[in-house]
Amino acid sequence: MTVQSAWKKRVQLKKDQLNSKIKDEWRLSSSTISRLKDDKKNLVKNIDDLCPSSENQITHSTIVVLREKLDAGELTCHEIAFAFCHRAALIHQTVNCLSEIMFSEALKLADYLDNNKPAVVPPLYGIPISLKDQCNVEGVDTSLGYLSRTFKAKTKSEESLIVSLLRDLGAIIFVKTTVPSSMMATDTQSNTFGYTYNSINLGFSSGGSSGGEGSLIGAHGSLLGLGTDIGGSIRIPSSYHGLFGLKPTFGRVPYLRVDNSFEGRETIPSVIGPLARDLSDLRYFMSCIINICQPWVKDVKCIPYHFDSSTDKLHHDYVVAIWYGDGVIDPPPSDIRALKICEDVVAKTEGMKTVQWKPPSELSRELFDIANEADVADSGNEIKSEFKVSGEPLLDILKPMVLEDGRPPYTVNEWWNLTKRVYSAQQSMREYYLSFPESERPDVIISPTTLTPFRPGDMLKTTLRYILLFNVLNFPSLSIPVGKVNCQIDRPMSVSSALNPEDKMVKTYWNDLLESGDIEGFPIGLQIVSPTFDDSEVCKFASWLLGNI
Amino acid sequence: MTVQSAWKKRVQLKKDQLNSKIKDEWRLSSSTISRLKDDKKNLVKNIDDLCPSSENQITHSTIVVLREKLDAGELTCHEIAFAFCHRAALIHQTVNCLSEIMFSEALKLADYLDNNKPAVVPPLYGIPISLKDQCNVEGVDTSLGYLSRTFKAKTKSEESLIVSLLRDLGAIIFVKTTVPSSMMATDTQSNTFGYTYNSINLGFSSGGSSGGEGSLIGAHGSLLGLGTDIGGSIRIPSSYHGLFGLKPTFGRVPYLRVDNSFEGRETIPSVIGPLARDLSDLRYFMSCIINICQPWVKDVKCIPYHFDSSTDKLHHDYVVAIWYGDGVIDPPPSDIRALKICEDVVAKTEGMKTVQWKPPSELSRELFDIANEADVADSGNEIKSEFKVSGEPLLDILKPMVLEDGRPPYTVNEWWNLTKRVYSAQQSMREYYLSFPESERPDVIISPTTLTPFRPGDMLKTTLRYILLFNVLNFPSLSIPVGKVNCQIDRPMSVSSALNPEDKMVKTYWNDLLESGDIEGFPIGLQIVSPTFDDSEVCKFASWLLGNI
Repeated sequence: MTVQSAWKKRVQLKKDQLNSKIKDEWRLSSSTISRLKDDKKNLVKNIDDLCPSSENQITHSTIVVLREKLDAGELTCHEIAFAFCHRAALIHQTVNCLSEIMFSEALKLADYLDNNKPAVVPPLYGIPISLKDQCNVEGVDTSLGYLSRTFKAKTKSEESLIVSLLRDLGAIIFVKTTVPSSMMATDTQSNTFGYTYNSINLGFSSGGSSGGEGSLIGAHGSLLGLGTDIGGSIRIPSSYHGLFGLKPTFGRVPYLRVDNSFEGRETIPSVIGPLARDLSDLRYFMSCIINICQPWVKDVKCIPYHFDSSTDKLHHDYVVAIWYGDGVIDPPPSDIRALKICEDVVAKTEGMKTVQWKPPSELSRELFDIANEADVADSGNEIKSEFKVSGEPLLDILKPMVLEDGRPPYTVNEWWNLTKRVYSAQQSMREYYLSFPESERPDVIISPTTLTPFRPGDMLKTTLRYILLFNVLNFPSLSIPVGKVNCQIDRPMSVSSALNPEDKMVKTYWNDLLESGDIEGFPIGLQIVSPTFDDSEVCKFASWLLGNI
Repeated sequence: MTVQSAWKKRVQLKKDQLNSKIKDEWRLSSSTISRLKDDKKNLVKNIDDLCPSSENQITHSTIVVLREKLDAGELTCHEIAFAFCHRAALIHQTVNCLSEIMFSEALKLADYLDNNKPAVVPPLYGIPISLKDQCNVEGVDTSLGYLSRTFKAKTKSEESLIVSLLRDLGAIIFVKTTVPSSMMATDTQSNTFGYTYNSINLGFSSGGSSGGEGSLIGAHGSLLGLGTDIGGSIRIPSSYHGLFGLKPTFGRVPYLRVDNSFEGRETIPSVIGPLARDLSDLRYFMSCIINICQPWVKDVKCIPYHFDSSTDKLHHDYVVAIWYGDGVIDPPPSDIRALKICEDVVAKTEGMKTVQWKPPSELSRELFDIANEADVADSGNEIKSEFKVSGEPLLDILKPMVLEDGRPPYTVNEWWNLTKRVYSAQQSMREYYLSFPESERPDVIISPTTLTPFRPGDMLKTTLRYILLFNVLNFPSLSIPVGKVNCQIDRPMSVSSALNPEDKMVKTYWNDLLESGDIEGFPIGLQIVSPTFDDSEVCKFASWLLGNI
């Protein structure tokens, strides 16, 4: 057998393993799949049509409502788990968003929970939760999109702390979701699991690296799932599916025993956090994980910290900064319109004011450069060696991560220099923040996110200029949906007045998406960011904002 | 001029600059210096004899008392500053503990403070504070013991944040103190400033790397100074001079713009903290720096955190763990005796209990190995290149830090692997802690520190086995004095039953120090450590302990 056929055979084995976990009665015919794929903007409705309305009522609900119905005896854990397993199976067959399926385990646990209901039920009792592939679950692979890591089921002692905590809270884990191999891309693709499409618009990428989560939750296949974010991996798929996605400050949600690329790279660390359809659900989840589980007891990287989800009431003299652009890449008209909507709401509210967030462009550039340098510090060694083990070919989306110019990996001294630059840039941003008069120091910043979606193959036509800096800064950021692109209102950008080649590329792509009409109705995603590391504040403000738009 | 004579000339220039800042009337004759040096164990008394009793009353006081006398108008800032400048000058001429002298600036500021006393005086108003050389002060070098960095006075904008905060609190900065070149040694020596002797016993090293601070404060030349600790550099000089020295958790006291070796090395970070004669002073200082200055506003690495210095009252069911040995190196009889004194005091107190701290020896070894690997990760590149710039010869004490076997610096991947091991070892220790029944989980641990002092040249005959692990673990640790070595009680150790060659070396050295009688009366230093990162708790417990021994 040639090397080529060996890796392909292993891919097939993994695909067969995955598919074998979908019940026959949940399988879609190839013609149905084609129909669903072709009707790009209507997957949610089309899946609704394939499910009984009793299931749709469940999958279109929220955690908070389902918990009430469970408590009232109006629903069983089994009914809830069944509805989500069924729907996830249908969505997956269309958009390819699952890497591991645990339907039978989930239904078994649901039955157990129904039959052994304690007097006081834990706060996520019977609630199905989806997990990005990185989370270790006993008996299941964590492949990170690497063929080399398939068929290496994790043991009980390898389970991620967050998984144990979810079990303690009564949650039901039912699927793990796809990632780009290595997670170091914003497009979700691997030789093993293929391409994950956007479930809001199948003509687009699901984003990444938590693309499987975004696509699954986007089509109501899960209410809440866990993603990770080292360069937008929670926020991008959230914004591409009209969801809420929180990149917390480092050390809020435990990362212990969650597999990752570049483990031990603590400068600009990856963080783990929730993606959810509903902001109240997200806040409820964060308060459970932090206030109830107290993860700092078991994970030394976690910080003792309370998460306030009790109110939407903002303090007096609230200051909201609006970031209309970094002077490097102009956000598209849809983002500007969404930012103005937010600004207007704040400006007209008694006791609140807006200020312009305009950190020096040099600082934005430096933050972006630092993040990019960090990502290729090892010249792609780790990624290359993983691909070499299995013999699978390197993906195009990973080529920017794998240097082919022979530059050796950074020495430890070069790495420490980069770490110094991180601290220095963080301090510069702090100084910018402190340069506001005290009464005008922002409580939160509203910022663009991804600027545009992208079609398969076009990952490099988008920019991470409004994404990466918040990783370097370790600012908590909540991705929120604010309206949708309207091709009648949001008009083409002037390419001739582009600020630089990258700006030109982004503007050209925007115009292209607009002309084709593909972007019509696509969710606009903004970020609510805290310059003072307050995760609960960004959620509280977002909740207030959405209640007032 | 040859290279050799060039560096020597530059050394002489720096020495001349330093000496020129000592008033003529404060200069000691060479015969007096010889007499003070020869009377090794009586420096404090001998210096007392050289100073007026009014000055001795000041220098033998505490911050808390001096503040009261200032408030009551019984003392002026000038009198206090004068007493400490004078005494520091005398001590320095004997033990060689100062790298920068700012007497005239200090006296000028003292006069200003006397003449411009505000209605509400800030909490360190008129209190002289000494600084380890690393702290940047406008107009003064920060040479870190490197000749290459002399005659490069720092500018206002380069001042360390901690220095600005001290100024805000009203403190008077009057000296900076010696360090071993690079700070990566526990003996304080440099080609530029020479050797810093122990002021409690001039036959011994002052320890390091905050050796100048230890020696100065040890002889009452300062009440409180700032040191740093990446591998014992606060705790060792503290224990060698019978002082209190706090290695805080990372992020408690701001390190912003404090110069350092290996800047950007955030794994096992250096931390900054106080050395003081008096524990109440140390706690007062910490509460000022943290609660009043709120350093997290300006330094993004600082953690919002309150320091409780209000009480010595311990909570109910207090658990104190005693660490009698790591199974690798046996502590000497003096340490065991001191540990037993502590254990007895706790055991006989209602509502308190003791447990044995016995983490696996394998874990102790791993923590020690990690710290040592981290210290030579760059193969000594940084140190070598600093010495090369000036042409000064490499010091023997730094030879363990500079690899000569041609091993290249770690790659970034090797560094990340080491960082992973740090996290893993931290988690293993957390698991050991959690393995105690909940009612027996220690609030604090009492541990040995340095085991023995050492004579100049004998640095490598001591061990850091009870030191380095707490840096890797990021546990706050307070060095405290508990009695003195008594050669009648503390007897020789059995070398024939040594556990391994290192243990044999330490035991042999102990026996040697005992036989010579040199160690008689030397302070015994223990550490109070918090396994749950609570800096104020270790100070509170130490305060209770010393009040009850």
